[in-house]
Amino acid sequence: QTGLYFIKWLVLGSSVGALAGLASAVFLTSLNWATETRMAHSWLLYLLPVAGAIISFFYFKFGKNADKGNNLVIEQANGAIEEAIPLRMIPLVLMGTLATHLFGGSAGREGTAVQMGGALANQVAKWFKLVKNERSILLICGISAGFSSVFGTPLAGTLFGAEVLVIGLMRRDALFPSFVAAFVGNLVTLSFGIQHHSYAIGIIPELSVLLLLKVLVATILFGLTGLLFSRLVHFFKKTYQSLFKNPMLKSFVGGLVIILFTFMVGNQKYAGLSLELIDQAFAGVSGAFDFIWKLLFTALTLGAGFQGGEVTPLFDIGATLGSSLAHLMTLPPAFMAALGFIGVFAAATNTPIACFIMGIELFGSEGAVFLFISCLISYLCSGHLSIYSAQQIGMPKNQLFKQ
Amino acid sequence: QTGLYFIKWLVLGSSVGALAGLASAVFLTSLNWATETRMAHSWLLYLLPVAGAIISFFYFKFGKNADKGNNLVIEQANGAIEEAIPLRMIPLVLMGTLATHLFGGSAGREGTAVQMGGALANQVAKWFKLVKNERSILLICGISAGFSSVFGTPLAGTLFGAEVLVIGLMRRDALFPSFVAAFVGNLVTLSFGIQHHSYAIGIIPELSVLLLLKVLVATILFGLTGLLFSRLVHFFKKTYQSLFKNPMLKSFVGGLVIILFTFMVGNQKYAGLSLELIDQAFAGVSGAFDFIWKLLFTALTLGAGFQGGEVTPLFDIGATLGSSLAHLMTLPPAFMAALGFIGVFAAATNTPIACFIMGIELFGSEGAVFLFISCLISYLCSGHLSIYSAQQIGMPKNQLFKQ
Repeated sequence: QTGLYFIKWLVLGSSVGALAGLASAVFLTSLNWATETRMAHSWLLYLLPVAGAIISFFYFKFGKNADKGNNLVIEQANGAIEEAIPLRMIPLVLMGTLATHLFGGSAGREGTAVQMGGALANQVAKWFKLVKNERSILLICGISAGFSSVFGTPLAGTLFGAEVLVIGLMRRDALFPSFVAAFVGNLVTLSFGIQHHSYAIGIIPELSVLLLLKVLVATILFGLTGLLFSRLVHFFKKTYQSLFKNPMLKSFVGGLVIILFTFMVGNQKYAGLSLELIDQAFAGVSGAFDFIWKLLFTALTLGAGFQGGEVTPLFDIGATLGSSLAHLMTLPPAFMAALGFIGVFAAATNTPIACFIMGIELFGSEGAVFLFISCLISYLCSGHLSIYSAQQIGMPKNQLFKQ
Repeated sequence: QTGLYFIKWLVLGSSVGALAGLASAVFLTSLNWATETRMAHSWLLYLLPVAGAIISFFYFKFGKNADKGNNLVIEQANGAIEEAIPLRMIPLVLMGTLATHLFGGSAGREGTAVQMGGALANQVAKWFKLVKNERSILLICGISAGFSSVFGTPLAGTLFGAEVLVIGLMRRDALFPSFVAAFVGNLVTLSFGIQHHSYAIGIIPELSVLLLLKVLVATILFGLTGLLFSRLVHFFKKTYQSLFKNPMLKSFVGGLVIILFTFMVGNQKYAGLSLELIDQAFAGVSGAFDFIWKLLFTALTLGAGFQGGEVTPLFDIGATLGSSLAHLMTLPPAFMAALGFIGVFAAATNTPIACFIMGIELFGSEGAVFLFISCLISYLCSGHLSIYSAQQIGMPKNQLFKQ
């Protein structure tokens, strides 16, 4: 009986994993091309308003519910009234994300991978005629496989899928299926020669009361920054929507605003994924206020209807903030950048265990206690709003929030 | 508001942590003494029946509900009808465990630490006049602090407390308090100069389909071994109880049975904690059937009413089984011993995430994917019965078990 369970979910999970891994490989390869092209031709930024208008036109004309993005996948995995996750979501989000990055918007990539994974899982569920709860598990597989393959972190992917749907609960019955999907997805993506960045946490400072106090203060700030990010994305989305009834006009103006801000800062370092910011943060040479600029650029980009995702910008924001705090607190920059990297992410997504595991996968186990503190404290400080409005609250984070 | 929450649980969690850490330090020091004394004087084994009778006499005369041991702590943390966890549990379980180890019973130590932690937390809850849900969280703190300090693994302790109460759920609202308790408890124990064993996982074999298949087979066996252990302990407890109405007589006969079995195997290597078995397993020189003997000795010891706990024997059983399988499968012994170490434990306690984190804390992150597979698969294979009968089922482990 347990044998049957294993075989069933090995087959289903691997199918979703393989498809999502393939999609991620195509996506990451073309994203690399888009990033390099943009860096080589800085004038592409001037086309951002037009690109935005075109993305929004396609979503408006063909998107229907695909417009809901990540939230559609989360809603459906949570078992909302059944609604298809359409296959057209894949070309839409893929093209939308590539255009956003090619023309200098500031965005991430996990949203794209998760939506492609979700749409593919929805398709597999149809083929196998799965019942409601099984479909729900398969959608979690899609989320896990997308996340895992895009970042090269299969265990974080597994737990992200199980943890992101509901605050305070973990879908433990989905762990095996989503692990299979995440594991296979990652291998498939790697098999196409995709390489993931690696970061070294460096020296872990020796434990002391002073160090704990510094880390506590820093992680509270990580949590508040994550909160600020979620609030700001929601705020810009609402504001843009109420100002411009026409989505094409909205994204066009949104693109103009990005150009304006780019002139203000005088360079394009906040465009695209900004992976260099993370390298600079770990080396201790990022700018003191890089985090706030990256936060603003990303919120403005996503608020105006561009595509991509939030997670890589959250890594940028966290790592640069951590590095800035390291200078103030006379702590090693790489150590603090690593804590910020996962802490701000945990705060904005409400997935502390997945983020902790990601920390272990990326930075090793030597600083495990600090990684755990960072995820836990910033998660507790970020309130119940996350970047995913479809996320449910299963259990209040703490007693005081209940009131 | 969140600030108040932090301060409140920092104070409460640290209090429980400090008390439990102190108790663990006293316990581990005296346990070392008991183990060394037994090893130096093998004739102490002949006094095991009398020691058993005396332990059972004390529990019978003064124990009342303390007799329920770990299950009392779990029940109360789960919010059963309020029932005190009496302070007398501390001397009872401490003396009972020391006597069990001194006279050559086969048992562990986490039960003792968890019960002392639980009783101390119950006391702290009384002092601060906590309401029901707060008391429940504080009892989880006691479990976490006890576990953390006795094994030197604060993160595994944190998650063990949050995960052990209910299968398939994790008390996320207890994470911060129980982390504080586990962290402080571990530091306090360490400050008394207590040292914990460390094990090296050695070379991680390269990923291949064949390796995955071997690991899958091994982890299924780990799961079934964990299941066998739980069943056997329950079975011996029932059998002894139905055969002997008088608990003193029960433990006396139980002691005789252990002596008999010791004569059969011709040595005392399965007495006490048997930490040497783990060293031998990692070195690849443990006996092929050590795991089954240790399993039998421990089930017979605990079934007859001796005290201690199950976790260290589970480590022994898992590590030696892993090492035996390594020889059959031509894999590195240390690698397989590490997988068995945490896998059998995950199966018998139904706490896969805590066991995975323990693996990371003990063996580092290099083999993280395999550690995760081991905990997950063996957890899935072990059914819903665990060594803790008070554990509730929050969510069936998988679809097929539901029927």
